[in-house]
Amino acid sequence: MKLYGGIEAGGTKFICLVGNGPDQLVEEMRFPTTTPDETIARVVDFFAPYVNRGELVALGIASFGPVDLNQDSKTYGYITTTPKPGWNQVDLYGRIKRNLNVPVSFDTDVNAAAFGEQYWIQENQNLDPFLYMTIGTGIGVGVIVNGLPLHGLIHTEAGHFAIPHNLQRDPFQGVCPYHGDCLEGLASGPSMNKRWGQKAETLPDAHPAWDLEAEYIALALVNLIYAYSPLRIVLGGGVPEHPGLHVVVRRKVQQLINGYIQSSMVLESIDSYILPPTLGTRSGVLGAIAMAMKIEEFSLE
Amino acid sequence: MKLYGGIEAGGTKFICLVGNGPDQLVEEMRFPTTTPDETIARVVDFFAPYVNRGELVALGIASFGPVDLNQDSKTYGYITTTPKPGWNQVDLYGRIKRNLNVPVSFDTDVNAAAFGEQYWIQENQNLDPFLYMTIGTGIGVGVIVNGLPLHGLIHTEAGHFAIPHNLQRDPFQGVCPYHGDCLEGLASGPSMNKRWGQKAETLPDAHPAWDLEAEYIALALVNLIYAYSPLRIVLGGGVPEHPGLHVVVRRKVQQLINGYIQSSMVLESIDSYILPPTLGTRSGVLGAIAMAMKIEEFSLE
Repeated sequence: MKLYGGIEAGGTKFICLVGNGPDQLVEEMRFPTTTPDETIARVVDFFAPYVNRGELVALGIASFGPVDLNQDSKTYGYITTTPKPGWNQVDLYGRIKRNLNVPVSFDTDVNAAAFGEQYWIQENQNLDPFLYMTIGTGIGVGVIVNGLPLHGLIHTEAGHFAIPHNLQRDPFQGVCPYHGDCLEGLASGPSMNKRWGQKAETLPDAHPAWDLEAEYIALALVNLIYAYSPLRIVLGGGVPEHPGLHVVVRRKVQQLINGYIQSSMVLESIDSYILPPTLGTRSGVLGAIAMAMKIEEFSLE
Repeated sequence: MKLYGGIEAGGTKFICLVGNGPDQLVEEMRFPTTTPDETIARVVDFFAPYVNRGELVALGIASFGPVDLNQDSKTYGYITTTPKPGWNQVDLYGRIKRNLNVPVSFDTDVNAAAFGEQYWIQENQNLDPFLYMTIGTGIGVGVIVNGLPLHGLIHTEAGHFAIPHNLQRDPFQGVCPYHGDCLEGLASGPSMNKRWGQKAETLPDAHPAWDLEAEYIALALVNLIYAYSPLRIVLGGGVPEHPGLHVVVRRKVQQLINGYIQSSMVLESIDSYILPPTLGTRSGVLGAIAMAMKIEEFSLE
């Protein structure tokens, strides 16, 4: 039996999965991210038996970033300028590929999550552009355009959008070390923790934090809609799991667009336009498996 | 001899061109946009002799918008919700195609301009994503991603990005009828005219208008860089023609990114990263000709 492997390499935890899709999971392992040496060794140990038995035909890696996706670059497949201690300039792709000796596809965690949600969920398969945004420790955006994940100078970094910041309503200066009050600086989980002096998940429903957060998420979505004109947006990560937040965000998106986009998806069907991930916390790792399955078509190896 | 036709359908003027590229122009006509009936009749009269002689094999239309680019839609090729009197819901594509009876490719003026600059200029041909932004009467963005123009729910509307607006520095409320102080509301030619009480082109170099304008253009470019990670940005339209503006914009883009994008294009070679159009005022119409030449490959007909 042919099997595929997926790795979601996160700054906090790694997920390794062997299988052939959401309904054909063979084995999964989740563990905290430690040093590159230790973490990569665990990854290799997990997949090695499948490779040695000749079952595992290809691997996909969905990595935290920034990463180098330029296949002509000497540092292709590296995690580049991350602030995460020890992980700066780590050859994640190369070290896994050399140790396991199978074809490996490599992309950002968020491009993989977008691809996973699009590839495995039947209703999403013809929706292009297709967008995934995650809001948690950081804010990340992945997008499939014209059949492929968007790569360029690097990759999408829309989590760092410059957005309106009303200092009278929200005098907080933001937490982004590069930009202060960019989107991630104002709306990530850590920005909520710092602004309100408590963890986001402990803030009660009636706390003004949630209306402000919905406002920033809506501004981000409006800019993403204007940029990509996506046919569907999946909104994942820990922060949007707050009960009722999706509903407020959708209403604010409509208010901000104010009739400019004359599409029934925005005007009438926004509940099926902006959605939580269907694959739950496995969008990224199942996207990595899909990338492994498509490795030749995408020439992502 | 095989010839191709290009039409740049603007809200102010139309450009019609017959030829095979920037160095093989056969005939060009420019005239003011009046009513749809009169304007479309002039277009048809211009191209008809070439069609009748069997020379013109295909046409491309680069249209002002918003337009319907969904080929499954009953209003494919229509100009949709424009505020331009008389042009609401005009079947520009269908009326030209039926009258001339040749294959016709249809896209936004800015997608066509991006495609034209990429297709005809040798140094741009492998640069993907490739971006074109115009700042004049309105602000428009076109982008080629993974080999094709970006289409989606509609098309890119990044001219309406929500961007930071420092009300202390700039108390002007903006001119966008939908959003007030979105990018187009704050930085289009008409917004400059209204804010300063005189036409942008009459504002002297030392006027603070230009530094503020450069700031807004830089914020727009930063968001476009984060969204698309383009390999090159062409900045066209009337406003960026102001002497010295490009230089200030590039410096501000670097300051706003603040080292976050570790790419030599941004850090060192920004003069060849953000550029004026090589095709001058013909980016759109020559893009339309390129679209006509690629009509089968793109299935844009």
